[in-house]
Amino acid sequence: MLILGIDPGIAITGYGLIEELESGEISCIDCGVITTRASLPPQERLLELFNRLSRLIEQFRPDSAAVEKLFFQKNAKTAMDVSQARGVILLACAQGLVKVYEYTPVAVKQAVAGYGNADKKQIQEMVRVLLQMEAIVKPDDAADALAIAICHLHSCRFLGLNDEY
Amino acid sequence: MLILGIDPGIAITGYGLIEELESGEISCIDCGVITTRASLPPQERLLELFNRLSRLIEQFRPDSAAVEKLFFQKNAKTAMDVSQARGVILLACAQGLVKVYEYTPVAVKQAVAGYGNADKKQIQEMVRVLLQMEAIVKPDDAADALAIAICHLHSCRFLGLNDEY
Repeated sequence: MLILGIDPGIAITGYGLIEELESGEISCIDCGVITTRASLPPQERLLELFNRLSRLIEQFRPDSAAVEKLFFQKNAKTAMDVSQARGVILLACAQGLVKVYEYTPVAVKQAVAGYGNADKKQIQEMVRVLLQMEAIVKPDDAADALAIAICHLHSCRFLGLNDEY
Repeated sequence: MLILGIDPGIAITGYGLIEELESGEISCIDCGVITTRASLPPQERLLELFNRLSRLIEQFRPDSAAVEKLFFQKNAKTAMDVSQARGVILLACAQGLVKVYEYTPVAVKQAVAGYGNADKKQIQEMVRVLLQMEAIVKPDDAADALAIAICHLHSCRFLGLNDEY
């Protein structure tokens, strides 16, 4: 049972694949970032993001994807750029027949660290501990993506969505 | 020389194809709307929009696409939903190797009616006259898409982008 966590962005999208073992432990299968060059026009950046994410989905065939929900941002331009990236991310999941679940940043923090005001460092340390990794995951976007995947796993366990994820 | 105008939305996306004739006159080749059901999850709506637009591009092979730029909306949820739709629209253009140009609503009004404060009815009437159509195009989103395509044509003529569009 494989969960793909995604932290959307146009310049940098973090991804993290986690697997729940029979023992109930979880491990990190893969994680990283998809970056696109600012010098490219928006449609080319979206195409690059879409192609790379589609290949990841094809390669790993995750059972479900957990994508961070945007909260309202003061910078409308940024919010719209990230939303465009989110659009092609959701499309790649739909084309790859991967079920999509969405979580707010607060829900992710609560699931991983126990409270919604946890800071970035606390989240990264909890991700490291939960996934039994030797060092904190870098860059931040990859660690965030793993946190989103963990959030979905916790949510499934809590809701008993055994047939869903 | 074929231009595809697009008025992006998640519930309803307008499209309009115009062609410039040798005589310099322009005519409407096709126009309409792509709708998606509100009962579907976002990723399924985006997939439906993407598939239908991709088929249109494959069918007509436009030389360029003109897409309306979002201006900042008070309703952040709407702006983010439309941006997600815009993301898959830009992706469909990039995959179909269609050059993308973006125009603000004010630029479109200026190009079609001569001033940026023209109201919807004036724009629709100007679209009808410029394309030598018998009646005003319905629904509004299709008429808006044709206006965006006309804006791009004017912009090309003005800038002398003969090899571009």
